[in-house]
Amino acid sequence: MPALGELSAALGLELRGDPGRPIVALAALERATADELSFVSEKKHLSKLDKTSAGALILHPDWIERWAGSALLSEAPYLAFAKATLIFDNHPVATGRVHRSAVVSDAAALGEGVTIDAGACIEADVTLGDGVWIGAGAYIGHGSVIGKKTVIKPGAVVCHAVRIGARCTIHPNATIGADGFGFAPSAEGWVRIQQLASVIIGDDVEIGANSAVDRGALEDTVVEDGAIIDNLVQIAHGARVGARTAIASQAGISGSTQIGERCVIAGQVGMAGHLTIANDVHIGGQGRVASSVTEPGHYSSGTPIQPLRAWLRSASRFTQLDQMARRIADLEKALAVDKEEHEDS
Amino acid sequence: MPALGELSAALGLELRGDPGRPIVALAALERATADELSFVSEKKHLSKLDKTSAGALILHPDWIERWAGSALLSEAPYLAFAKATLIFDNHPVATGRVHRSAVVSDAAALGEGVTIDAGACIEADVTLGDGVWIGAGAYIGHGSVIGKKTVIKPGAVVCHAVRIGARCTIHPNATIGADGFGFAPSAEGWVRIQQLASVIIGDDVEIGANSAVDRGALEDTVVEDGAIIDNLVQIAHGARVGARTAIASQAGISGSTQIGERCVIAGQVGMAGHLTIANDVHIGGQGRVASSVTEPGHYSSGTPIQPLRAWLRSASRFTQLDQMARRIADLEKALAVDKEEHEDS
Amino acid sequence: MPALGELSAALGLELRGDPGRPIVALAALERATADELSFVSEKKHLSKLDKTSAGALILHPDWIERWAGSALLSEAPYLAFAKATLIFDNHPVATGRVHRSAVVSDAAALGEGVTIDAGACIEADVTLGDGVWIGAGAYIGHGSVIGKKTVIKPGAVVCHAVRIGARCTIHPNATIGADGFGFAPSAEGWVRIQQLASVIIGDDVEIGANSAVDRGALEDTVVEDGAIIDNLVQIAHGARVGARTAIASQAGISGSTQIGERCVIAGQVGMAGHLTIANDVHIGGQGRVASSVTEPGHYSSGTPIQPLRAWLRSASRFTQLDQMARRIADLEKALAVDKEEHEDS
Repeated sequence: MPALGELSAALGLELRGDPGRPIVALAALERATADELSFVSEKKHLSKLDKTSAGALILHPDWIERWAGSALLSEAPYLAFAKATLIFDNHPVATGRVHRSAVVSDAAALGEGVTIDAGACIEADVTLGDGVWIGAGAYIGHGSVIGKKTVIKPGAVVCHAVRIGARCTIHPNATIGADGFGFAPSAEGWVRIQQLASVIIGDDVEIGANSAVDRGALEDTVVEDGAIIDNLVQIAHGARVGARTAIASQAGISGSTQIGERCVIAGQVGMAGHLTIANDVHIGGQGRVASSVTEPGHYSSGTPIQPLRAWLRSASRFTQLDQMARRIADLEKALAVDKEEHEDS
Repeated sequence: MPALGELSAALGLELRGDPGRPIVALAALERATADELSFVSEKKHLSKLDKTSAGALILHPDWIERWAGSALLSEAPYLAFAKATLIFDNHPVATGRVHRSAVVSDAAALGEGVTIDAGACIEADVTLGDGVWIGAGAYIGHGSVIGKKTVIKPGAVVCHAVRIGARCTIHPNATIGADGFGFAPSAEGWVRIQQLASVIIGDDVEIGANSAVDRGALEDTVVEDGAIIDNLVQIAHGARVGARTAIASQAGISGSTQIGERCVIAGQVGMAGHLTIANDVHIGGQGRVASSVTEPGHYSSGTPIQPLRAWLRSASRFTQLDQMARRIADLEKALAVDKEEHEDS
Repeated sequence: MPALGELSAALGLELRGDPGRPIVALAALERATADELSFVSEKKHLSKLDKTSAGALILHPDWIERWAGSALLSEAPYLAFAKATLIFDNHPVATGRVHRSAVVSDAAALGEGVTIDAGACIEADVTLGDGVWIGAGAYIGHGSVIGKKTVIKPGAVVCHAVRIGARCTIHPNATIGADGFGFAPSAEGWVRIQQLASVIIGDDVEIGANSAVDRGALEDTVVEDGAIIDNLVQIAHGARVGARTAIASQAGISGSTQIGERCVIAGQVGMAGHLTIANDVHIGGQGRVASSVTEPGHYSSGTPIQPLRAWLRSASRFTQLDQMARRIADLEKALAVDKEEHEDS
């Protein structure tokens, strides 16, 4: 239970108020109580300050006259809040031990302070860096290398010859390095193309629960440093996710597509294969990315929900769009209206 | 092998026909044989009665003149059929034992008749209610509480401090309580926001295979009593799924979105974050829900498949829609047509 | 390290060049070095031949004058490449042993040369054919039958009474035979319909990582011979996937839908339930399949991404489409333009 003054010091933030005030937890503005710390990260939330019971707030110095209570002042309140969550972290911690029920090959190399939990399996020629934590029932395949302090959560499967950097988290039931979906058609049916390359994951990468990052056929699948990937995401063989790119849940990146740095790919976005996506591209939810994107910026596709009957009419008319456009053109011709004025719209 | 009379008694349904007739199985109308029981749940299927060979049918009393054979009469034939499946259930049953290869913390509290199968791992301070069944290789994290008669299927991962109610089923390879996807941007890259809250699941909830329900940052993620969630569904941190709401496969609910009671969310629906969805809202498949829905009812979005060339034209015209609308307006102006008559369409 | 002549013999391809030339690996055209073999599968890639450093190429005899170096000539270069990947395969191989930490029921029947890796669990009445390989931590439920040489990868869960044919691969963390999503509404909430049928998978089938194939209620879910299914795919209860059909990542097939043979279903396609899809149907990415498809061919739906502002206008106009169409009709009436000429467009 840190006092407010200790939090000020730990977070490097200027304190206004009583440094001895105990803070027992972090809480959202709407629910925080007198012994809890909350935060305001956006100006639009300042209107909630009248109603909060928070004992102290992290907020921007520009907003300080809006709040009479205790405060920790930050130019980047959301980032300061993120750092505060580390102080109040309540996750279980690694034991630093190999559980008796884990199966660890004699030919695996374990760094200092490695934790391997119950029922995990570490195959031959695996290298686990210092402080690595392999969760219960997780699997690390032959020859894979896991960097320092990386955590592989329970049930995750890392196939053979995968390289994962330092300080990554692979969340539960994720699969890294399964065979890419590569088959050649033949008269006798699909012939599997053995996926001979692997998956290379940089440092500080997160791969969400139940996500799949497939190994490449001839080229490695790559996730660069600092990329963050949510749950149930598909990264197909030979794809590349640039540094610090964020990919939200259920998005799918097809084979060989190269995504730049600092992109934000929203939930359920689908990308075709063999595309190139520039740096700093943002794609809205369910976006249908069928061709390369060469310019940074925000893109979206899709249609909004409507009440069912209205939508049925819209969807039906969608299939007549080309006909409608040509009818408009005919009307314009008949009336001699100049359509050019709208061409750049 | 119950006789028809026994089924009548067990299901509380009026019998027409020979109570001694043996029924060996349930079967679909099209395939049922003379010693099998089938059902008709909708009027539109009555036309199939001429062709069925079923030995007996569950059907509505109003339809009885359409069927000369043995029958169990029910005002709710589909519900009666559901109850009949319980009588013919052929799933493996729990042993009531802890398998020698399971790893159970001394600091876990086990109720009466708990089953823990091979290789499962139960961490410290876990509480398992009476009759709980933990499947092979499943993982229950520190301090989690599982209510009476809940079944955690093989390979499912329940992280720390999760609370699951009674009579739930968590299907194979589902992940409950992994860290929500919360990061603050900084000059050095994404900074993780520790997810300090948890997941609270009510009674009689189903979570499908390979689905993920993430833990919250400051607010718990909540799935209320009687909600049913299909496979490969994403429930992000801080979201709430109201009582008896059904969510079909591959739908994704973003962070903090609050879904009301008795909603039906179809497959591959995507919901943005921080929305509020009223009670009794139905969203059609692949629906793109980008803003809150305040009124009950049926909603949909998207476009229908077309043959490829026709679709290419429609999709191309979609990007010209605003221009088309303005060209129509210009034509109306030129012709002095009153467009107001369509405004309420 | 085979010599080129050995590769020629093994692949049954005519060699042009030095049979003694050592080939150490396969590589993509752009990166292949002088001791590596590459391939050209499509005419459009012939322009890259000027720049490649590959030591030898698999290519079509018609293209031979475009390439002065060593070559293996094939009428089907992509298929020949697929077969070459088998020669250079670097995957770990099965040990043919049952690991001491695996839990195998005395009532399971194991064929010749079965491999069962660490922590796997094989329940009673399971039959494993000759050469079957069960990966670490995988689970095979009561009474399931796995055909010869099929590989069940780490973390995969096969529930009870499932039948899988020969030479299949079930990739990591896939779930086969979980309960279909079947519930009957009642005044007391959803009542589970026990899923009494199972999953039947043919020979030479692939099921991707983290995919789910649910068991049926009364009818088995069926995946026919030679079908290939990618990661994170949902196959709901009672669906049928025809022989040699390919389903890409994150597609979802709802209950009872019957897909024909040799179809290609792209990523994130969603199919409603109870549909029939003809043979040789191709559905483009994110396709919204709400009704049956009776004719072979290529189909697509959806809209392309646009820059955000442009898309907002398009999406907004989409909801006005019916009104726009009627305004066009009014204009045509006012002008007496004949719209019939576009009706068949």
